[in-house]
Amino acid sequence: MKNILIASTSTLANEEFLEYLLPELEHHFHNCTTILFIPYARPGGISHDDYTAKVAMAFAKINKKVKGIHEFEDVTFALKNAEGIFTGGGNTFVLVSQLHKKGLMTTLSEVIKNGTPYLGTSAGSNICGLTMQTTNDMPIVYPPSFQTLGVIPFNLNPHYLDPDLNSNHMGETRETRIKEFHAYNTVPVLGLREGSWLDVKGEKITLKGNLNARVFKQNQVPEELEAESDLSSLK
Amino acid sequence: MKNILIASTSTLANEEFLEYLLPELEHHFHNCTTILFIPYARPGGISHDDYTAKVAMAFAKINKKVKGIHEFEDVTFALKNAEGIFTGGGNTFVLVSQLHKKGLMTTLSEVIKNGTPYLGTSAGSNICGLTMQTTNDMPIVYPPSFQTLGVIPFNLNPHYLDPDLNSNHMGETRETRIKEFHAYNTVPVLGLREGSWLDVKGEKITLKGNLNARVFKQNQVPEELEAESDLSSLK
Repeated sequence: MKNILIASTSTLANEEFLEYLLPELEHHFHNCTTILFIPYARPGGISHDDYTAKVAMAFAKINKKVKGIHEFEDVTFALKNAEGIFTGGGNTFVLVSQLHKKGLMTTLSEVIKNGTPYLGTSAGSNICGLTMQTTNDMPIVYPPSFQTLGVIPFNLNPHYLDPDLNSNHMGETRETRIKEFHAYNTVPVLGLREGSWLDVKGEKITLKGNLNARVFKQNQVPEELEAESDLSSLK
Repeated sequence: MKNILIASTSTLANEEFLEYLLPELEHHFHNCTTILFIPYARPGGISHDDYTAKVAMAFAKINKKVKGIHEFEDVTFALKNAEGIFTGGGNTFVLVSQLHKKGLMTTLSEVIKNGTPYLGTSAGSNICGLTMQTTNDMPIVYPPSFQTLGVIPFNLNPHYLDPDLNSNHMGETRETRIKEFHAYNTVPVLGLREGSWLDVKGEKITLKGNLNARVFKQNQVPEELEAESDLSSLK
């Protein structure tokens, strides 16, 4: 049975890394001694080791050890034998490139579908959808494909931002960008605001946190969903 | 001799489409009766016909006719015989996909290098650099390549935005994203604010408009350049 937390962001303003999620994570990973961390998204180009050390510091607060997947010779083996998995944020193009090039996209999807507890934040959440095509990130590397894990039947836009009505900036708003996505694609998109996360248990998907989320469907007016909404039928 | 205008945006707040550029365009295209328009970026999924009609309305104010490249059976012929070319904004992934799939990227680069007057705005400016990898757009389609025209020897970030120091949003700032680009790439990036444009005459590149632009080089502190700066040595 799938057991997934999909968070918009790792960090809230003026808080420590993962701080707001720690109570949830203690419960989510309660059967795990060690979390396998996937550091490939490398925010700001940080090294795999440094990123893993940062994650280890956060998980130490709930008495979990962390091991980076880059420390394993056989990364497929590492995924298949993980007690729990966390994929951190950073650049989604870099993350997806690495997962495809190392042949890990399918294996990661399989172990999540088979019940290994998974946490994603930001880029690590983006990959839970069908494709990475609603990321906010810059295409700083060219991935072999935009296909992602497909452990939920829609796409995500993490760090969802409402339009700034006082802005004179003429670049597209997030909503405009997602509407453009729907000029070419039929997959629904969930705009997940910072502080929200999805809790996936089997086929049941619930919106968690205190905020609404915004649902975009092709040729339909976007819809606001309240916290605790059931998203299981969104596809 | 190259003769190119590369604008951050087509439109300033509270102005008509291309309004602030019209005096410049009258001069830039003074030898042209008809401008060939490349509508492929389709902002918001607008049709090629509707986008071309919008552009024709703007150019009518300086007595220029506009013909969309999609109206030609032989698009390569259209490029080679154009008196002047304008590529409008929208989604850079869609634009670059179309140019590659129709085999037009090389031809467009050649005719610009041979002196056909060219105007780009936003996505149409982005493609003047070496790659589209510093676009702000969503990857709503998968292009065959991120390579672009290379008519200037660096990359652009149009609609460049300074960090909002009052924001609690934890998504990356534009500067952070460009720094991430430089974790994997050596090409310099010019952050071009709305209202700025580059004037390219042969190998001479000049920053125009009233604003500074921000130059990002790998492993260097970003630098502000004043209007009228000579960018010819940036590579």
